[in-house]
Amino acid sequence: MTLRATGRVLGAFSVCATIAVCTLYVTKSTAQGERQAESNAAPIYGITIPAGYRDWRVISVAHLAGGNLKQLRTQLGNDIAIKAFREGKLPFPDGTIIAALHWNEASSDENNKVLASGFPGAGLQSSVAGSAENVQFMVKDSKKYAASGGWGFADFKNGKPGDEALHKTCFPCHQPAKDRDFVFARYAPTP
Amino acid sequence: MTLRATGRVLGAFSVCATIAVCTLYVTKSTAQGERQAESNAAPIYGITIPAGYRDWRVISVAHLAGGNLKQLRTQLGNDIAIKAFREGKLPFPDGTIIAALHWNEASSDENNKVLASGFPGAGLQSSVAGSAENVQFMVKDSKKYAASGGWGFADFKNGKPGDEALHKTCFPCHQPAKDRDFVFARYAPTP
Repeated sequence: MTLRATGRVLGAFSVCATIAVCTLYVTKSTAQGERQAESNAAPIYGITIPAGYRDWRVISVAHLAGGNLKQLRTQLGNDIAIKAFREGKLPFPDGTIIAALHWNEASSDENNKVLASGFPGAGLQSSVAGSAENVQFMVKDSKKYAASGGWGFADFKNGKPGDEALHKTCFPCHQPAKDRDFVFARYAPTP
Repeated sequence: MTLRATGRVLGAFSVCATIAVCTLYVTKSTAQGERQAESNAAPIYGITIPAGYRDWRVISVAHLAGGNLKQLRTQLGNDIAIKAFREGKLPFPDGTIIAALHWNEASSDENNKVLASGFPGAGLQSSVAGSAENVQFMVKDSKKYAASGGWGFADFKNGKPGDEALHKTCFPCHQPAKDRDFVFARYAPTP
C-alpha cells in the first residue's frame, strides 16, 4: 500500500461514518437518479455526505505525519455526537455522526515571516490547513450496522466515495477502540 | 521573552478578539460584581470570553512548533465571521468575532499503536489536542476599536485574561495582515 493510499485509509483510522438515507438523491426516482445515488454513496454502508457537516461543532484537532504524508485534521460532530461526547456517554446513541476532515498540511510562509520578526531566534514554524485530502464519516445505527459495531463508515475525496476495498478496512481498523465504542477521537478540553 | 510567554503571545499572532459588553457580569451592579467584571475582562479592550464560543464553526486548523512549544490550534468564527469568510468579504463587518483555540500537542500512543499495526513500516505519528493552553479573540467594532484597525483583542488562559503588556503586542503583531483586515487565518476548503 502506497502512502497515498495510506492517507486515504487513515480517515478510517481517525474517524469514519454514514448517513442513513440518501435524501439528496433518492428523491429523484428515475433510473438516472438511482444511478447517481449509487455513485455518490459509499460502498458497503450506503452512506452519502451529510448536508452541512462543515457547520458542525469541533470534537478535537489532530496532526498526522510520516513519510510524505503530513496532515492537519479535525473531527466534527452533529448535535447528538457533541452531546454524547460532553456527557461522556457510551455507547454513542443512534443518530450520532462524526466527521473527520483531513487537509494536507501547508507550511505558512506568511505566518513564518511574522513569527521570525516578532519572535527572533525562537525558530517557530507555522503550518495551516492546505488542500483538502478527504472527509470521513462514522454514522451510528445500531440495527442497520449491527455487523460493524453499530457503525457505518464512509470515505470521500472530492465528493466521491472510495471503493469497496477501502471501506472494508474501516471497521477492523477501529477494533482497538472497542471499549470507547470504536471511536478514536477524544473530546478536546475548552481553553 | 521565554517560549512559555511566547506561546501565550502567539495567540495574538494567530488570532485575537473581544466581546463588546460584559453581559455576564455587568448585570450585577454591586461593587463586588463590578470588581469581578474587571478581573474577567481583558485589559485595553475590555473584552470578556464570549458565551458559547466552543460551539462556533471552524475557519481552519493550524500547527505551531519551535523549541519546547508544540501546539495544535483551530480558529472558530461566530455567524458573522463565517459568513464573511465564505463570501470573501473585507473588511469584516462589525460584530465579527474570531476565536483561536490553542492546545498543547500531545503524542497519541494509542493512535500510534493502531498505526504501527495497520500500516507497518510507514512510520506514522499521530498527535492530538492535549491540555488547553489559551484562547484568544478578535472582536470587530469599527468605532469602539478605531485606534486598532477596528479590532479588539483578548487573550485568556484558564478563564483569566493576560496582562496589559501581553495585550499591547496584539495589534502591532497583526499589522502584516493589514490587507486582509489584520486577520491571519484563511478559510480552509471543505473536503
